[in-house]
Amino acid sequence: MALIIQKYGGSSVGTLDRLRHVAKKIKQTRDQGHDVVVVVSAMYGETDRLIQLAHALTAEPDPREYDVLVSTGEQVAVSLLAMALITSQCPARSYTGHQAGILTDKNHTKARILDVETDVIQYDLSKGEVVVVAGFQGRNERGDITTLGRGGSDTTAVALAIALKADECQIYTDVDGVYTTDPHLIQDACLLQKISFEEMLELASLGAKVLQMRSVELASKYNMPIRVLSTFRDGPGTLVTHEDKTMRNRLISGIAFSREEAIIALSGVPKQIGIEGRILGDISNAHIEIDMIAQNATSKDTADFTFTVSRKDYPKTLKLIDNIAKELGASTNSSAKVAKLSMVGIGMRSHAGVASKMFKCLGDAGISIQMITTSEIKISVIIDEVFIEKGVQILHQAFDLDKVSSVSMSNIE
Amino acid sequence: MALIIQKYGGSSVGTLDRLRHVAKKIKQTRDQGHDVVVVVSAMYGETDRLIQLAHALTAEPDPREYDVLVSTGEQVAVSLLAMALITSQCPARSYTGHQAGILTDKNHTKARILDVETDVIQYDLSKGEVVVVAGFQGRNERGDITTLGRGGSDTTAVALAIALKADECQIYTDVDGVYTTDPHLIQDACLLQKISFEEMLELASLGAKVLQMRSVELASKYNMPIRVLSTFRDGPGTLVTHEDKTMRNRLISGIAFSREEAIIALSGVPKQIGIEGRILGDISNAHIEIDMIAQNATSKDTADFTFTVSRKDYPKTLKLIDNIAKELGASTNSSAKVAKLSMVGIGMRSHAGVASKMFKCLGDAGISIQMITTSEIKISVIIDEVFIEKGVQILHQAFDLDKVSSVSMSNIE
Repeated sequence: MALIIQKYGGSSVGTLDRLRHVAKKIKQTRDQGHDVVVVVSAMYGETDRLIQLAHALTAEPDPREYDVLVSTGEQVAVSLLAMALITSQCPARSYTGHQAGILTDKNHTKARILDVETDVIQYDLSKGEVVVVAGFQGRNERGDITTLGRGGSDTTAVALAIALKADECQIYTDVDGVYTTDPHLIQDACLLQKISFEEMLELASLGAKVLQMRSVELASKYNMPIRVLSTFRDGPGTLVTHEDKTMRNRLISGIAFSREEAIIALSGVPKQIGIEGRILGDISNAHIEIDMIAQNATSKDTADFTFTVSRKDYPKTLKLIDNIAKELGASTNSSAKVAKLSMVGIGMRSHAGVASKMFKCLGDAGISIQMITTSEIKISVIIDEVFIEKGVQILHQAFDLDKVSSVSMSNIE
Repeated sequence: MALIIQKYGGSSVGTLDRLRHVAKKIKQTRDQGHDVVVVVSAMYGETDRLIQLAHALTAEPDPREYDVLVSTGEQVAVSLLAMALITSQCPARSYTGHQAGILTDKNHTKARILDVETDVIQYDLSKGEVVVVAGFQGRNERGDITTLGRGGSDTTAVALAIALKADECQIYTDVDGVYTTDPHLIQDACLLQKISFEEMLELASLGAKVLQMRSVELASKYNMPIRVLSTFRDGPGTLVTHEDKTMRNRLISGIAFSREEAIIALSGVPKQIGIEGRILGDISNAHIEIDMIAQNATSKDTADFTFTVSRKDYPKTLKLIDNIAKELGASTNSSAKVAKLSMVGIGMRSHAGVASKMFKCLGDAGISIQMITTSEIKISVIIDEVFIEKGVQILHQAFDLDKVSSVSMSNIE
């Protein structure tokens, strides 16, 4: 008998039929003899409806009241799920984040969990009840309702798993788990049996929407394994856990990509201390987020400075940069038709030559690289967007990602 | 400077425009230097939407979970109202019943308020904030969310007024106050300046929907004056308070009526101990509510037994009664085309002859009385429904109810 935390997202409980299906899955787990704590998001569309209501009323909703409002979305979902469970002879009790003892800091709309009081939940579990907790919300020191920001339900689930010393934290979603790359693009994409916290964090930061970043950080810090599973199809899913030999033996674990990029290069920038801050200052002030940054010294007196932004911010950014370039006597070169391709894997740490193999593969295919950045377990390149599918395909094959599943099967420690 | 409790019902906050209007009224009260605690119901239609959701999911929703679900309706309303107040530069904080310290018994869906913890509210008031509390809900000893049943927001307002020792409890609704009779039927109907708790209770039990009965009981017990006012039109409203000389000098305060009645008479019922219970037992078991009951001994051996039920229950009741009549050898006489006409007033206690004057007026107008019941401050008669308008008109005039307003104006103690 184990203690299992299960989290179901908004699309998993998007209709009453889906709610009933989720109740059935929970009951099955309990019937197998496990203790179950369930974390639920608001039904699909509900949070947006509430946010629209607030914005129809006032341009700037008070953050404290905004949290009181949007937290009702999960409250509706937990009560309905508990009703569905009770109706199918599975004893259950629902709790708001406030009631469940999810204690947060006071930052409304983006609070962080500080602690979890588990008395109430543990009492119910001891009575054999399924505990259904509203995700995404908690209470601050003053007893006010707080919310954790979008995707916060994953974090609620992980925090509860840690506080309750659960055996596993299962995140149910609408995909089967974590793939080596997007299976919509590459047919040979493989479901990963396991992936390390660190790799998952890199993938999440690259836009993989499988898990919310903060939840992975938290799981990693307390070494709480997360299993990503599909609500709608049975399967083993992907276990996100501490790194092991299998993962280290794998050169890379996944290839991520994003088409919505734009690149801007400034060349002939005079070398001055603080010049980078000067260039990016205006852009940050305009609330434009900069993604990749690279700088090269091209001569004794000048440097090249290249960065990327989201494609939607491109026109605005270009206008700002043109002004700066004029002032600095630099020239600009830019394109909004580029894409980012990233390889992630803890294997890179111990295996030399991953980067050079990647560049060679792309070069052999006639794909020119416009920009490169790296971290310890990630290499990202910017290429022309027309080459993205070809690039992913070549690298997926070259790094044996189409054979990952069987490899990791035989190599589990 | 006074402490004022204001309660706004679902139709008063039914749209965002109405919410803004309510916020403006609250701000005006605060700008006059008063401390204000506001109690709000769910936006019109919202509670029904939530109940339908529960019933679409399961035939018998668990009562505890039902309360978690429907309590979100008020939570949405309080947060939006607080946002509207803050946007118009009026500091405000919203609270659920749980947070506001509304302690109830454990009877889900129809809980009674046991106590109110006022610390949080008093702290906010001391800081000059408007406190907005979700009506209709509280928490039980275990910390579970409870609801008070339909109309419970009035009771929340009165309970808060008592606990906070407020100067006045204002109930804002969609009528101007309490009238001598229905102004839709009788043009000369007058707005009452004052009415006693006892009279208001009788009127509420007769179906006047201005105030929820339990709230009047509570206000009466703790002598907390309630003022009924319109959200949409300015005016003095009606003060529901302890009785005074003005009220005692008035023969009657109001005439209530209901068209939805049906009368069933059994004659020749053999005199036996417990025979009344026998007759009504089957009807109660069928969950049919009996309203008026009268019994007369017509001979040494038999009695007549007459009662009324709601018209919608008439066919079902008649079928049950026909069976009983056969068994008892009694005959039945019934009609579904009757109406109830009631006069209420504490003046009846000290003034003899109110009943006889009433019967004489009706008789002079050719209206025959089919049944009579009385309480200390109320007389109800059943008449043919075609005479209801005429009956109310005659009595309204005969008892000077069209002059009530000016009388009470000059006679305030």
